[in-house]
Amino acid sequence: MNMSKKRILIVGGVAGGATCAARARRLCEQCEILIFDRGPYVSFANCGLPYYVGDVITMEENLLVATPKLFKDRFNIEVYTETEVTRIDRYQKEIEVRDLKTGKIRREPYDALVLAVGAQPIRPPIPGIDLPGIFALRTIPDSRKIRKAVENASQAVIVGGGFVGLEMAENLVRRGLSVTIVEMTNQVVPLLDPEMATFVAAHLQTNGVNLRLNSRVEGFYPRSPGGLSVHTASGDKIDTDLVILSVGVRPETSLAKEAGLVLGEHGGIRVDDQMRTSDPNIWAVGDVVEVRDVITGNWQLVPLAGPAHRQGRIAAAAILGHTNADIHFRGVQGTAVCGVFGLTVAMTGASEKALKRAGIKNYQKIYLHPGSHVGYYPGAKPIHIKLLFSEDDGRILGVQAVGESGVARRVDVISMAIQMGGTVYDLEEAELCYAPQFGAAKDPVNLAGMIAANHLRGDLPLADWEELNKADVQLIDVRSVAEYERSHIAGAKNIPIDELRGRLGELSKDREVWLVCGVGQRAYYATRVLLQNGFRVKNLSGGMQTYATFRNILPFFH
Amino acid sequence: MNMSKKRILIVGGVAGGATCAARARRLCEQCEILIFDRGPYVSFANCGLPYYVGDVITMEENLLVATPKLFKDRFNIEVYTETEVTRIDRYQKEIEVRDLKTGKIRREPYDALVLAVGAQPIRPPIPGIDLPGIFALRTIPDSRKIRKAVENASQAVIVGGGFVGLEMAENLVRRGLSVTIVEMTNQVVPLLDPEMATFVAAHLQTNGVNLRLNSRVEGFYPRSPGGLSVHTASGDKIDTDLVILSVGVRPETSLAKEAGLVLGEHGGIRVDDQMRTSDPNIWAVGDVVEVRDVITGNWQLVPLAGPAHRQGRIAAAAILGHTNADIHFRGVQGTAVCGVFGLTVAMTGASEKALKRAGIKNYQKIYLHPGSHVGYYPGAKPIHIKLLFSEDDGRILGVQAVGESGVARRVDVISMAIQMGGTVYDLEEAELCYAPQFGAAKDPVNLAGMIAANHLRGDLPLADWEELNKADVQLIDVRSVAEYERSHIAGAKNIPIDELRGRLGELSKDREVWLVCGVGQRAYYATRVLLQNGFRVKNLSGGMQTYATFRNILPFFH
Repeated sequence: MNMSKKRILIVGGVAGGATCAARARRLCEQCEILIFDRGPYVSFANCGLPYYVGDVITMEENLLVATPKLFKDRFNIEVYTETEVTRIDRYQKEIEVRDLKTGKIRREPYDALVLAVGAQPIRPPIPGIDLPGIFALRTIPDSRKIRKAVENASQAVIVGGGFVGLEMAENLVRRGLSVTIVEMTNQVVPLLDPEMATFVAAHLQTNGVNLRLNSRVEGFYPRSPGGLSVHTASGDKIDTDLVILSVGVRPETSLAKEAGLVLGEHGGIRVDDQMRTSDPNIWAVGDVVEVRDVITGNWQLVPLAGPAHRQGRIAAAAILGHTNADIHFRGVQGTAVCGVFGLTVAMTGASEKALKRAGIKNYQKIYLHPGSHVGYYPGAKPIHIKLLFSEDDGRILGVQAVGESGVARRVDVISMAIQMGGTVYDLEEAELCYAPQFGAAKDPVNLAGMIAANHLRGDLPLADWEELNKADVQLIDVRSVAEYERSHIAGAKNIPIDELRGRLGELSKDREVWLVCGVGQRAYYATRVLLQNGFRVKNLSGGMQTYATFRNILPFFH
Repeated sequence: MNMSKKRILIVGGVAGGATCAARARRLCEQCEILIFDRGPYVSFANCGLPYYVGDVITMEENLLVATPKLFKDRFNIEVYTETEVTRIDRYQKEIEVRDLKTGKIRREPYDALVLAVGAQPIRPPIPGIDLPGIFALRTIPDSRKIRKAVENASQAVIVGGGFVGLEMAENLVRRGLSVTIVEMTNQVVPLLDPEMATFVAAHLQTNGVNLRLNSRVEGFYPRSPGGLSVHTASGDKIDTDLVILSVGVRPETSLAKEAGLVLGEHGGIRVDDQMRTSDPNIWAVGDVVEVRDVITGNWQLVPLAGPAHRQGRIAAAAILGHTNADIHFRGVQGTAVCGVFGLTVAMTGASEKALKRAGIKNYQKIYLHPGSHVGYYPGAKPIHIKLLFSEDDGRILGVQAVGESGVARRVDVISMAIQMGGTVYDLEEAELCYAPQFGAAKDPVNLAGMIAANHLRGDLPLADWEELNKADVQLIDVRSVAEYERSHIAGAKNIPIDELRGRLGELSKDREVWLVCGVGQRAYYATRVLLQNGFRVKNLSGGMQTYATFRNILPFFH
C-alpha cells in the first residue's frame, strides 16, 4: 500500500467526519478521499437547528457550513449524499453503499475507513410515539418539519429537560407557543447537580415555561379535531399541538456492530486514543464513539461538537501517520454550555453526581455567587458557581455555573485549568482581565480558588448542607437583623457579623457552630473570628443563596 | 515579640493595602492592625473613576468599597484617613504620622509595616503644566474636579493614549465633549504591538475622537477669555477647555527612599516573592513595587489592581508566618483589558516589542480574525488576535486581542494557559464552551493553537509581513476574483484557491511562493497544496486583514 496515496472513506459528513476529511486532504494531497452521507446535506450546523426553528436563524442555507461542491472544488473530496453505507466488508476492505435516489448498490474499497455516523435521537417505546405531531430534532429536514408544525400550533410539550429541550423551549416560546417541559427526573439539565438546576428551573418558570418534573410520559393520544394528549405516569393529561422529543441520543452503531467492531459498555464504538477501532483499518469519531472522561477515567458517551472536531483531526493524522507531534485524544472534560432566555448554564469536568457514580470520595465542594463584574459599575449579575475539587491535593474536579453574564468565560478559564492539571491554588493566583465592566480585581475564578484554598489550608472548615437537618449544632446567621427578619433557616440564631466579637459569650464551645450569611463572605469572616477564639466552627458554603437551592430539592428543608 | 499579637501598620488603604489589612485580620484575631491614608477615603474604586466622570456611575458613594466604619466594625481595624506618614524609623520600628486635619505629629510603633502607598500620575515638566484646567485622575477628589470642569466644557484634550486615556475619551464623549487624544508615540495603547493598535485607533476615529499620534506636547497656554491651547512639537495648536493628563504613573517611593529601602532599576521598591523589602520588617505591595514579568523574567512596574490584591494577601500571610501553603508571588503576566466605545482590547503575557526589549529571539507570531461565535448565528463579531509563542517548544508567550465581543474570555483562557506553562498544543486541545451564540466547535482559542501548532509541525511555514516589500517572491492572492479586484497588495497575482490545483503550472519552483487570502484560512489550504507539490511556500498570517494593519504603520506599504 502506498502511504501517500491512501483511499480514505468517511461515513458521515457532519462535524467530525467533515473535519477529518478536510484535514486528511491537508495532510495528503494525493490521497483519494470520499464522504458518504445518508442525508441530503453534509457539514451542516447541527447545533443551530433549534434557532432555525425559532427564526433566529432565518435562512436555511445559512445552516450549510460547506456544500459538496465546496468539498470538491476546494478540497478535491468527493461527497455522496443520500447514499447509505449498508455493510462493511473488513476482509476485502470494502464498503457496500446504496444510492438512495436510484436504489443502486455498489462497493467501494478503502485503505482507511472512518465511521463518523453520529447518533440518533432516542424514541422511547411509548404508546403513540409514532403519531403525527411528535418530532425529534437532528437534521435540517427535521427542523423544516417542526417549523411547519409550529405555524399552526399554540402549544408544545417538550419531553426531556436537557440542553436541547431548553433550547427548544426558548425557541418555541419565541415563536409564540405555550410550552410545557416534561422531565422524568427531579430536575432540569440532568448534567447539573440538582441544587444548581434549581436556578435554571426558576428562570424557565419566570419566562412562562411550564415545568413538570418527576414526570414520566406513559402515552401519546390523538385528540379530535386535532392535536395530542400527553399522559404521564402520575396521571397528568397535557393537551398540546406538537411534541418535541429531546430525551437524548444513541450512537448509530448498526454498521459497526454488524461488522463485529468492539463496542463499549455504553453502546458506543470503542476506540484507542488515536480514534482507531478494534479493526486497525477502521477509525471512528464523534457521537458514535465512547470517550474517556478525563476526571473519572471512565468511558462515557459525550455527544458534543468540540470533541468530535478534535477527534476528526486526530483520526486524519493517525491514518496518515502524521506523527511529528504527539497526537492523542486526551479524553473529554464535558465542557458544555446552553443559553436559555438570557441565562447561561455552563459546566466542565465532573459534577458531584458523576463523582459519586465513579466512586470518587475524597472531594469537596464550595458554592459562591459573585457578581459578573464589580458592584459599583451598573449591570452586574450574579454568577452562581459550584466548584468541586480534591480534598487531597486541591486538584480541580469540576465546575458548574449559572448566570446572565460572564458565565462561559469563567467556565472556560477553569476548563483550561483542569486541562493543565490545575489546582484551586492556581485559580487563586490566576491573573484575569479586570476593568470595572469586565470583572473584578478578585475575579469570580479567583474567589472560587480562594474559598477552596482557604478550606484546604484549614482556615475555612465546611459544613454539609445535606446534613443541616440532622446536625446537632448551633446555627448562627451573621447577616443583619433586617436580612434575618426577612427570612432565615428555622432554628438559626441571629448575631450580625459586626456584633460578633462582643457576643462570643452567647455561644457554647461544646457544640459545633455552623455559620450562614447571604452568600458566604460574612460567614467566612465570622469563621475566622470564632476559630481563633477556640470555637469549633463550620461554614455553610454559599449562604442563603445556596440554602434556597437545597430547600427546593431536599424535602426536609421545607 | 508575640507572633500572635503583632502590631501591623499599613500605609495606604486602597486595593493592596486594604486587602492586606483584611486578610491579616482573618489570619490573626489578636493582632493590632492600623491603616493610614493621606487621602480622605480608603478602599475606593480607583478603576471606576473614569466612569464616574462619564456619569455611568452616578453616585459618588458607590465608589466607596469599604468605609473606615466598616473596617472598624467588621474587622476591628483602625483607619486613619487624611493622615500622612512622614517618616519611617527602621531602627525604632516606628513611623511618624501627621494628622492633616490638625497638623499634629505622632509616632506609631510597628512589628510589621506594609507600604501600599501606590503611585502618582506623572506630570511632565512642560511649560504651563500647572495651569487651571489641567487634570490628572487618580482619586475621588480628582474626579469630582473633572466632573465640575466638564459641565462648562465642550472640548477636551487627553494627553496619553493608554488605557486610562481611552477610558477618559469614551467618558468625555459620553458627556458630549469633542475629544482629541495627543499621543507621543506612533500608536494608541502603547502596551499593544503597533499593528494591533491600528484596530483601536480606527475605532476611536469612527467614534469621533481626534487622534494626534507622534505628537509631543511642548506647552500649555492660556487663552482669553478662557480655556487652553495645547502646543505640540510639530507645531499644532489645539484649543481646548480642559486637559486630562494620562501619561502613566510613577511609584510613590519618597518614604521608602528616605528610609533607605532598596529600589529597583525602574524606581519601584524591590521586594522578594513574599513582598518583603530589603528591611525584614517592612513589606510593600501594589503600584509602588517592581514585579517580575513571568515571561521575560525582567523586573517591571505593572500598576494593576489584580496583582495588587494578590500581593496584599501574600504579604499578610508572610507577616503572620502563615506558611501552611506555598505562598509566593509568582510574578505578573500583565493581563489587562480596556473597553472603549464597545470595543474590547485585552492582552496577557508579553507583546512582541516586550520580547524584543528583553532580547528574546526565538519566538514566532501568528494572526487570526475569527468570529466571536459561529457565522450562521446572528451577531458574530471578529476578534483580531495576535499570538506569540516559542519556536523551540511551542510555549505560549503572549496574546493580544481586539474586538467587540468575547475578547476578554479568550484572553483569560490563554492567561490561564500561560500561568500553567501551556503550549500552543494545549490551546489546540482546549475544550471550551460551545453553543452557536457562545463560540464555535473550533473556538478562536483552538484556532490560534491549531495555526501555531501547524506551523511548528512544519505544515504551515510563516512569512514575515515586515519583509514583504524586500522579499523577491511570487506573491499569490488565493481569494476570489471579485475580492482581489476590490483591492489587493501591489504585485500580487490572483489564483483563486478553488482553481489552484489546475494552475500549478503558472508557478515557479525557483522562487518562494508567498500566499495571502482574506484572513489566512484559504492561504493555509493553498500552502498545503503547494508544499505537497514541491513548491517552497510561506504564508502571510492573518491575510488581508492583517495586511491592512501593517499598511497603517509601515510606510513602504503605502
